[in-house]
Amino acid sequence: MNHWGRIFSVSIFGESHGAGVGVTISGCPAGISLKLKDFEADLSRRKSGAKGTTPRIESDKPQLLSGVFEDKTTGAPLTVWFENRDSKSKDYATVIKQPRPGHADFVAKQKFAGFNDYRGGGHFSGRLTLALVVAGVIAKKIVSEVEIDAFIESIKGRTDFDEIIEEALAKQDSVGGLVRCEAKNIPVGWGEPFYDSIESVISHLAFAIPAIKGIEFGNGFSCTELWGSEHNDLIINEKGETETNNSGGVSGGITNANTLTFKVAVKPTSSIGKEQNTMNFEEGRIKPLIIKGRHDACIALRVPVVLEAITAMALADFKLIRKTQTQPNK
Amino acid sequence: MNHWGRIFSVSIFGESHGAGVGVTISGCPAGISLKLKDFEADLSRRKSGAKGTTPRIESDKPQLLSGVFEDKTTGAPLTVWFENRDSKSKDYATVIKQPRPGHADFVAKQKFAGFNDYRGGGHFSGRLTLALVVAGVIAKKIVSEVEIDAFIESIKGRTDFDEIIEEALAKQDSVGGLVRCEAKNIPVGWGEPFYDSIESVISHLAFAIPAIKGIEFGNGFSCTELWGSEHNDLIINEKGETETNNSGGVSGGITNANTLTFKVAVKPTSSIGKEQNTMNFEEGRIKPLIIKGRHDACIALRVPVVLEAITAMALADFKLIRKTQTQPNK
Amino acid sequence: MNHWGRIFSVSIFGESHGAGVGVTISGCPAGISLKLKDFEADLSRRKSGAKGTTPRIESDKPQLLSGVFEDKTTGAPLTVWFENRDSKSKDYATVIKQPRPGHADFVAKQKFAGFNDYRGGGHFSGRLTLALVVAGVIAKKIVSEVEIDAFIESIKGRTDFDEIIEEALAKQDSVGGLVRCEAKNIPVGWGEPFYDSIESVISHLAFAIPAIKGIEFGNGFSCTELWGSEHNDLIINEKGETETNNSGGVSGGITNANTLTFKVAVKPTSSIGKEQNTMNFEEGRIKPLIIKGRHDACIALRVPVVLEAITAMALADFKLIRKTQTQPNK
Amino acid sequence: MNHWGRIFSVSIFGESHGAGVGVTISGCPAGISLKLKDFEADLSRRKSGAKGTTPRIESDKPQLLSGVFEDKTTGAPLTVWFENRDSKSKDYATVIKQPRPGHADFVAKQKFAGFNDYRGGGHFSGRLTLALVVAGVIAKKIVSEVEIDAFIESIKGRTDFDEIIEEALAKQDSVGGLVRCEAKNIPVGWGEPFYDSIESVISHLAFAIPAIKGIEFGNGFSCTELWGSEHNDLIINEKGETETNNSGGVSGGITNANTLTFKVAVKPTSSIGKEQNTMNFEEGRIKPLIIKGRHDACIALRVPVVLEAITAMALADFKLIRKTQTQPNK
Repeated sequence: MNHWGRIFSVSIFGESHGAGVGVTISGCPAGISLKLKDFEADLSRRKSGAKGTTPRIESDKPQLLSGVFEDKTTGAPLTVWFENRDSKSKDYATVIKQPRPGHADFVAKQKFAGFNDYRGGGHFSGRLTLALVVAGVIAKKIVSEVEIDAFIESIKGRTDFDEIIEEALAKQDSVGGLVRCEAKNIPVGWGEPFYDSIESVISHLAFAIPAIKGIEFGNGFSCTELWGSEHNDLIINEKGETETNNSGGVSGGITNANTLTFKVAVKPTSSIGKEQNTMNFEEGRIKPLIIKGRHDACIALRVPVVLEAITAMALADFKLIRKTQTQPNK
Repeated sequence: MNHWGRIFSVSIFGESHGAGVGVTISGCPAGISLKLKDFEADLSRRKSGAKGTTPRIESDKPQLLSGVFEDKTTGAPLTVWFENRDSKSKDYATVIKQPRPGHADFVAKQKFAGFNDYRGGGHFSGRLTLALVVAGVIAKKIVSEVEIDAFIESIKGRTDFDEIIEEALAKQDSVGGLVRCEAKNIPVGWGEPFYDSIESVISHLAFAIPAIKGIEFGNGFSCTELWGSEHNDLIINEKGETETNNSGGVSGGITNANTLTFKVAVKPTSSIGKEQNTMNFEEGRIKPLIIKGRHDACIALRVPVVLEAITAMALADFKLIRKTQTQPNK
Repeated sequence: MNHWGRIFSVSIFGESHGAGVGVTISGCPAGISLKLKDFEADLSRRKSGAKGTTPRIESDKPQLLSGVFEDKTTGAPLTVWFENRDSKSKDYATVIKQPRPGHADFVAKQKFAGFNDYRGGGHFSGRLTLALVVAGVIAKKIVSEVEIDAFIESIKGRTDFDEIIEEALAKQDSVGGLVRCEAKNIPVGWGEPFYDSIESVISHLAFAIPAIKGIEFGNGFSCTELWGSEHNDLIINEKGETETNNSGGVSGGITNANTLTFKVAVKPTSSIGKEQNTMNFEEGRIKPLIIKGRHDACIALRVPVVLEAITAMALADFKLIRKTQTQPNK
Repeated sequence: MNHWGRIFSVSIFGESHGAGVGVTISGCPAGISLKLKDFEADLSRRKSGAKGTTPRIESDKPQLLSGVFEDKTTGAPLTVWFENRDSKSKDYATVIKQPRPGHADFVAKQKFAGFNDYRGGGHFSGRLTLALVVAGVIAKKIVSEVEIDAFIESIKGRTDFDEIIEEALAKQDSVGGLVRCEAKNIPVGWGEPFYDSIESVISHLAFAIPAIKGIEFGNGFSCTELWGSEHNDLIINEKGETETNNSGGVSGGITNANTLTFKVAVKPTSSIGKEQNTMNFEEGRIKPLIIKGRHDACIALRVPVVLEAITAMALADFKLIRKTQTQPNK
């Protein structure tokens, strides 16, 4: 489904090499100040062009199509649109014959009976995360009391990021990395039983970001190495703050007054210049494939701002839902 | 929200020490054979009573309240109900004064302004997973071509399960573990862009299971240690089968003809007999807490069947949605 | 779908002659006082047994299965269950051979490939409106500032209700009627563009009530006989009150400070004692049908309380959604 | 909510005098032939410019922003956009001071705390029905076996349409009308219990169309004047066809093999040239209002194609949902 969110809801459309990419947000309260320049900082953090990211330079100029009047949100659905400009579709003609390993080329063709727009991955492209960044900018305004920060922890297990990326570029290969996200100052009580725990909703959105392979909250997988008495976070004051934060700020799926913290694994970019032996469906045999075109050596570099965005989206929806839970006649 | 699923949809209600726990499934096709005994095998896998699980013995007898007629599903909403019998509520009276570390006691009280049913965790209890197991039994019938299997990989990093649980019991402490789930024989093309990737929906449901702290698909977090050329799964035949299965059976969020495989981290049971120093809200100071009552030393032991259930739920919904995507006039 | 509502959401399950009828409400705020006796007044208004309604006497005793603790709502899903007691299934065995005109017998069999529970209409029975009445009682508590009142305007175009029903009973025939519903004191601004206008949501729910054939708001169909200058409601004060209320309290789908008023047409009860010539599918020919069993001569008599219920449900959901629209940081 | 539909889902955005109006459709099967010229016929039926409609001439040129590739739907979200060109915003500056009777001006301002785009009604404008017409064109392709036809039955109770409109224009007043819609050849079994009856879903969508005040199915309100024995539709053959069609093609909310038929009441256009005495909020007193600008004398003239569109939308969603109800392993 291209639609997410119960109150703050975000619909995404577009393709990598079609007319463009867009996003419609409904349920955004009226009266929030919003100018085009508000998107600049986060869009530029997502942007390609840096070392390790694709040389495709998109101007990434958002246009406001609806929902904003005199620089304020109106309460009506808000649409932002990015026209595609620098797309070179001829680079992608071969993917129908020989799907790129690690990409959606093969499954997209099967799923949509060959009618999918295969150019640059079409609707499966990482370019769609532009829409998430836009939604994130607006969501951050709704949860302005929360401080959200995401950053790369490691690339291919290392912290000398420049060096490992140079190595990858030199080998015409790619690398993945770990990205952590933290959100401070969330009130107690956001998150919804039974299904819509904080972790459920954030992981749902996180796995919509291409290339995410795993997610863990708090101490995550390492919790299985501790005794319960070591893992439990002892409450130290009446605010609910805890001595440790192994739970990552969430108890029973609900925010618990401590910093929300989680980490995702980003796989190495699937598109690599290096030769790969994989099925050629036209010829019915395995054949070397060399992927031309422009690629990121490390897509993880572009993930932090997107992870902040989906976190803000989740929190904005939780915050608005939370408003419905006060006693009705008070 | 207590409601999940677009077509095969599952609503959950109930409390640990209230009248019981129930589940309503809508969107289940008519004509599926269903008898009470069909639930027995999976319910008994979930059951407490074994070493390492709580000595509370629930009879766990499901009752069919609606949606089944002459041992077949009718197409109308199907409700299954478990009456609570062996609940000892007096054990739980102290949790309002001194919330148990690692539990939802504190957040539930805050979220619901003190009106929550706190007995045994109320609606936050692991007992609610009964409802998931029931939904899983029915979902498995809908995706009967798929073979789903979940199992414990390790407990506290070890594979001598009995020994480590004995240790935990002796120390009045608890342990966590890793549980893997595999689903074989899924057709290509299940899963939905943009938001409802296979990973998104499965992780959403997985994190609704109490005590899950992390999830990873395929090689998961270890993908960040590989070069792209090592991580990419090369396609070896026209079915889409790949040489390796680092992706865990999913490309671009869509099933890709290989085995779906993922792993979750289950934290050590929060309730432990061992003394813990934590906030007593009645007295306004940190105080030793000894949790009485009956607890699992290792809740992970009961997770595999629940993980199979949520996997089957996700796949059943994806399969039914997939039926809407054929060309309409064929 | 058996599920309605974005925040105040109501799931319905059950059959006329199965184990019973139930309803699960999620999104109900915590802390609302709720006792079983709160349901009595509205349940008794819906009850059969009066002249013109079926002689089937159901005790209609609600049981609280979840979501209430110490006579207050907990914020968790709230389930109410009615066990069926006085059902005589043998009366209905013939409906599979010769579907009753005006009933769902024929379509239910086709839709569910013959697996439907056909006894007493199964899931299509008017008995399911019990669930709506329960949801209405709770919804009325959420919108306690609003005064909702529904009443019969006419039966078979007449206002001498007893006489016309006597006539119907004497003829072993049935009659329909008009029911009006009014809701006073709704704040301005409830209702949601684009799709969820007040009229859209109320009509959606109204047509879920069996036997409703039409709905009109304000002056309704007679608006087409007026000039615009006659139909327009002139605003007479700063509260937004209007000289006339042709619009029925709604402008642009949003409540406008005037009394919400609408009317529904209830068809004559389909089940009649009188002989009808209709298809016998077993014999493949048209044959006289005499419907045995117990029937309402005028189902409209039982509609007012159900109409109030669905109005309260709609308004409760709108009120809770409205809370999310205040400026977020105020 | 700006979002409708479970599988065939339609999101609407835009304003009358903003950048434009758009619609995003998800869940549309891949491989459906779609060219811009396919929209022409229905867009031109909706168009203004004829006698009785506003002289504002919009070119109404749709642009395909996503979801179509090589003249076929791709299965990805499909967006169509209409840029606004001929909008004269200065005409509307006074509506904030003196809301137009019968319009959403007053409620929109209250609901959105004064931040709404009030120009031309903003998001409440009838111009948004462009989006419905687009969705209808695509939906008709999905239910191509069904023949949908809507037409005006009467204007101000009369059938001499030209004359009555001339009268209205001469008086600077407006008139309403009745519009009927019929859909032939729908298979038995579309429509969903409990809430999503055919009537529920169609009325939900119909009341999203501005100016609709009532809806009735089959013989509608006149059913209350008949005996049950007169109203019941006797089944005359094994297909389920009936002697009469008082039910309008629907039994128990499900299509029953007969023609679906319903009628809506369209109120007289609210904007009239004639002077009206209504509240001026700036001056705090009732004052004459003369609405300048360009108006339809009879908005009902533009309703038939929109009514066909929402009928097709409803049927397309029902048809796709119906595909999920076959036995799963067949």
